[in-house]
Amino acid sequence: MLLGKVVGTVVSTKKEPELEGLRMLLVRELDASWQATGKIIVAVDAVSAGDGEIVLFAAGSSARQTLATKDRPVDHVIMAIVDVVTANGAVVYDKQHDA
Amino acid sequence: MLLGKVVGTVVSTKKEPELEGLRMLLVRELDASWQATGKIIVAVDAVSAGDGEIVLFAAGSSARQTLATKDRPVDHVIMAIVDVVTANGAVVYDKQHDA
Amino acid sequence: MLLGKVVGTVVSTKKEPELEGLRMLLVRELDASWQATGKIIVAVDAVSAGDGEIVLFAAGSSARQTLATKDRPVDHVIMAIVDVVTANGAVVYDKQHDA
Amino acid sequence: MLLGKVVGTVVSTKKEPELEGLRMLLVRELDASWQATGKIIVAVDAVSAGDGEIVLFAAGSSARQTLATKDRPVDHVIMAIVDVVTANGAVVYDKQHDA
Amino acid sequence: MLLGKVVGTVVSTKKEPELEGLRMLLVRELDASWQATGKIIVAVDAVSAGDGEIVLFAAGSSARQTLATKDRPVDHVIMAIVDVVTANGAVVYDKQHDA
Repeated sequence: MLLGKVVGTVVSTKKEPELEGLRMLLVRELDASWQATGKIIVAVDAVSAGDGEIVLFAAGSSARQTLATKDRPVDHVIMAIVDVVTANGAVVYDKQHDA
Repeated sequence: MLLGKVVGTVVSTKKEPELEGLRMLLVRELDASWQATGKIIVAVDAVSAGDGEIVLFAAGSSARQTLATKDRPVDHVIMAIVDVVTANGAVVYDKQHDA
Repeated sequence: MLLGKVVGTVVSTKKEPELEGLRMLLVRELDASWQATGKIIVAVDAVSAGDGEIVLFAAGSSARQTLATKDRPVDHVIMAIVDVVTANGAVVYDKQHDA
Repeated sequence: MLLGKVVGTVVSTKKEPELEGLRMLLVRELDASWQATGKIIVAVDAVSAGDGEIVLFAAGSSARQTLATKDRPVDHVIMAIVDVVTANGAVVYDKQHDA
Repeated sequence: MLLGKVVGTVVSTKKEPELEGLRMLLVRELDASWQATGKIIVAVDAVSAGDGEIVLFAAGSSARQTLATKDRPVDHVIMAIVDVVTANGAVVYDKQHDA
């Protein structure tokens, strides 16, 4: 999985029927300094993530292993909202203080 | 999924039988400034996308989860035409105005 | 799928039994100027592609969806020979003239 | 698989039910000089890896082939703790001396 | 598949049970000049490859299509030892002369 920040939404009316009802969020990957400067992807939201939240997302066939995404043409899913990240012995992100 | 812009078409007569009848479009990935300057891929069109439209495409095994692409040797599929993209609280793409 | 140019061949006698009889070609990815300057991969040939031809290849599990590659340890397959590529309204490759 | 160093942890309370009980570790890829300067990913720990250890991790659908991760929306798993790495005839990492 | 050179080995005692008995080799990708300067990956050896040999390896779910790796948490496998590579009409690697 990768860490990313929810930075927006994507709206589409003309789409594959299997995508109906799925919420699609813009997520930007965090870099090694924990800033959202990386690649921008579109992920289906399986955990009601909110704008600005740091999330974990999975790619590929693993993105179809949630109830919401099973057998759908989806290759990225947000499957966790992050509370705390520790790196090299220090807390580098704490949702209660940083969000 | 990734955001891309439909920039062209690919025509092929000598191909795997499973590809018969599939429309193959050139799609260029959008960068972080929402310009089509990224990698160029060829995706099967599952939603009748038109030239110049901003679309969502899925890669890998997820690209075989549409009716059109099931069990076919296809690794990219366009499965939604994008209407609106919002990022950091602003509308960065609106099909009605930008397309 | 990605566009590439067939630039060579790979011969191997000591290999997995499932690879017997498969033709393995060197393919170099096309860049945004339609030149073969990109990554070099080795793909199984499912369409009798010839040296110098522009082809479409699929990667990952999708590469095992052809008759020739089913259930084999193959992650890239050439599944179409390209006749014409149009981009931004212009023909950027035409096999009859460019090949 | 890739070689990485365990550099931290990720804690999440709001997540897909299938992720309950899985330990999620921050892993940083080793570069060609065997330093942990590469991409940072989040992997499920299947082998009780400890902070600072050099590990092997697998990505994609292969990450779901462990008892801990089967059918879960997980795309990276740590499946081995590395004892010794030899490259070009020399030992470049030995857990007993370097860890 | 990609071309790589076997440059070393990885030893691990604490690992997923499904990895028991598998030989794990360090492989470095060849670049466009056929030098082993690329990314370093760890692949399971399915063909008794030796140090310094040029090999073909497959990634992703395709890496689980050999007898040795079926259903195991393995995402790279060496499935052929290369004898000859020709590119642009010239032999760029011949095991009998170059190895």
